[in-house]
Amino acid sequence: MKLHPLWADYPTLQKELIETRTLMESSVRLKNKEVEQAILTMIESGGKLLRPAYQLLFSRFGVENDRKKAIAIAASIELLHTATLIHDDIVDEADTRRGVASIRSKFGNSTAVYAGDYLFVSCFKLMSDYASSLKSLQLHSKSMEKILNGELGQMDHRYQYTITIEDYLDTISGKTAELFALSCGIGALESGTSERFAKKASDIGMAIGMAFQIIDDVLDYSQTDQSLGKPVLNDVKQGVYSLPLIISLSEQSPELLALIKKQTSMTIEDQQRIWEIVHETKGVEKAYQYAIDYTQKALKLISSLPDSPQKKELVQLTKTILDRIN
Amino acid sequence: MKLHPLWADYPTLQKELIETRTLMESSVRLKNKEVEQAILTMIESGGKLLRPAYQLLFSRFGVENDRKKAIAIAASIELLHTATLIHDDIVDEADTRRGVASIRSKFGNSTAVYAGDYLFVSCFKLMSDYASSLKSLQLHSKSMEKILNGELGQMDHRYQYTITIEDYLDTISGKTAELFALSCGIGALESGTSERFAKKASDIGMAIGMAFQIIDDVLDYSQTDQSLGKPVLNDVKQGVYSLPLIISLSEQSPELLALIKKQTSMTIEDQQRIWEIVHETKGVEKAYQYAIDYTQKALKLISSLPDSPQKKELVQLTKTILDRIN
Repeated sequence: MKLHPLWADYPTLQKELIETRTLMESSVRLKNKEVEQAILTMIESGGKLLRPAYQLLFSRFGVENDRKKAIAIAASIELLHTATLIHDDIVDEADTRRGVASIRSKFGNSTAVYAGDYLFVSCFKLMSDYASSLKSLQLHSKSMEKILNGELGQMDHRYQYTITIEDYLDTISGKTAELFALSCGIGALESGTSERFAKKASDIGMAIGMAFQIIDDVLDYSQTDQSLGKPVLNDVKQGVYSLPLIISLSEQSPELLALIKKQTSMTIEDQQRIWEIVHETKGVEKAYQYAIDYTQKALKLISSLPDSPQKKELVQLTKTILDRIN
Repeated sequence: MKLHPLWADYPTLQKELIETRTLMESSVRLKNKEVEQAILTMIESGGKLLRPAYQLLFSRFGVENDRKKAIAIAASIELLHTATLIHDDIVDEADTRRGVASIRSKFGNSTAVYAGDYLFVSCFKLMSDYASSLKSLQLHSKSMEKILNGELGQMDHRYQYTITIEDYLDTISGKTAELFALSCGIGALESGTSERFAKKASDIGMAIGMAFQIIDDVLDYSQTDQSLGKPVLNDVKQGVYSLPLIISLSEQSPELLALIKKQTSMTIEDQQRIWEIVHETKGVEKAYQYAIDYTQKALKLISSLPDSPQKKELVQLTKTILDRIN
């Protein structure tokens, strides 16, 4: 059970993330052993565990220091993230996830629906077993409501040529940033910080999450070889537009608009030309500037936290994960 | 917004169920107005609201009498039920639900996945906003875990010719009865009854839920006209077996076994013959006896409750809904 190499620089966090993953795994107890195994494989083939890491770091700012509880809440948050991935794969008809077959491709949509539901519930179960107050549960479900409202909202935007930068930012704040905000906010609150501190933690998470998603979207367009941008160009064909393209669209290029209006009848040559226009109109560069702005916002807020080892780690981690481009 | 005519005999309950449905509706606030409307239509085209009704009746046994809270928890439980129906329709590829187009048939599986998720979350949000203690949230998520484990387990049983009566009872206890148990148990607990009383309430709900599901399954086979049994015979073709068939299978009829082993290559004549065998071997009659036993168990437990108007209503309601066959 190997953790992402990123965590080698953070020995305490690394140890706690391993415990987090162990707890996640022991929360998955299904009668259907095949599905249980598929979920466990998905957990082990592991994402970076960024959300629980932020939760764990913020859980060191309070007056309490109950590591068992902090780890349980970290596991709860990552189970929630895993649940959304399983359901996202149904929606995106994805065949693989983290290099292994997705639950839906292995067992079909039906199993994937209930497997995701099961993890949603496991997440709430851990939360209600370990949280100290109903307040955290309220925060948690309010965040999840925003996340799902974001997912459902995104469907509205397909083939919406007039989508604005604000629409995009609004969508990713629900789709990605909200869960980072929750991780940081609930980490702080459950460790016994003031509500005011927890709100600041949540704002930091929000800024990190925004930068994180924008960087993901910029990376799709910043391969030197255009053929590597194939997935994002397929998204464009399916009507899903991310920040670099949206910025270029806002430059009112009639050629670009005509090309994306071709929808599924778009050819490989059309896609190639879209790629070129997005680069020519500096959509990629300008999108990256948004990521830099959010990163700076996060770092500025972090710098206002009381000096402590966990603050240093927060700065280091945030710089590392938001610096994937250079 | 008409309620099921059943409730005309229970004026107070009727009034509270209308409030429950209003609260459910105001909990659904989506950016995507089309999906919001579809969920609202589903809520309004209304099930019987049996689960919230039991919750509301049991919430009158405690020392507290906070009707606002009781109604919020009732709404939470019915939202959960609605969420599972939306996801069940994906799994069953159902085109209609309660006489109107299902969410999946109207908007596709993707929207149905997130719409169900959204209602799951709304349910938890209401619970964490109104419940008095984490204990109820724990009960709630433990029940939901069982329900989903049941749904995932059921998939194991497809085309399982050796499925036993115990397997069937185990499956429906998760699939249907658990939510009745939760409704009764949480109703009692949150009104301030003892944990012991809440456990008894939960046992009553479990027995009612078991009887309720068995009766549903018996009704599928007890039409006088075999052509009305078409849906259940299609289930048999798809490998889903319910109690009457399982009882007949346990009689070791080689003819019946050979017929169901034909799986999807089953003809209309084969289905006709299966119908006959299930009746000849008294599968329907014997299954009905199980429903009677669970009903009597529920009524016996109810009779041990302290005399009160709500106890009378419990008896009347339980007799009414479990007496759909004669």
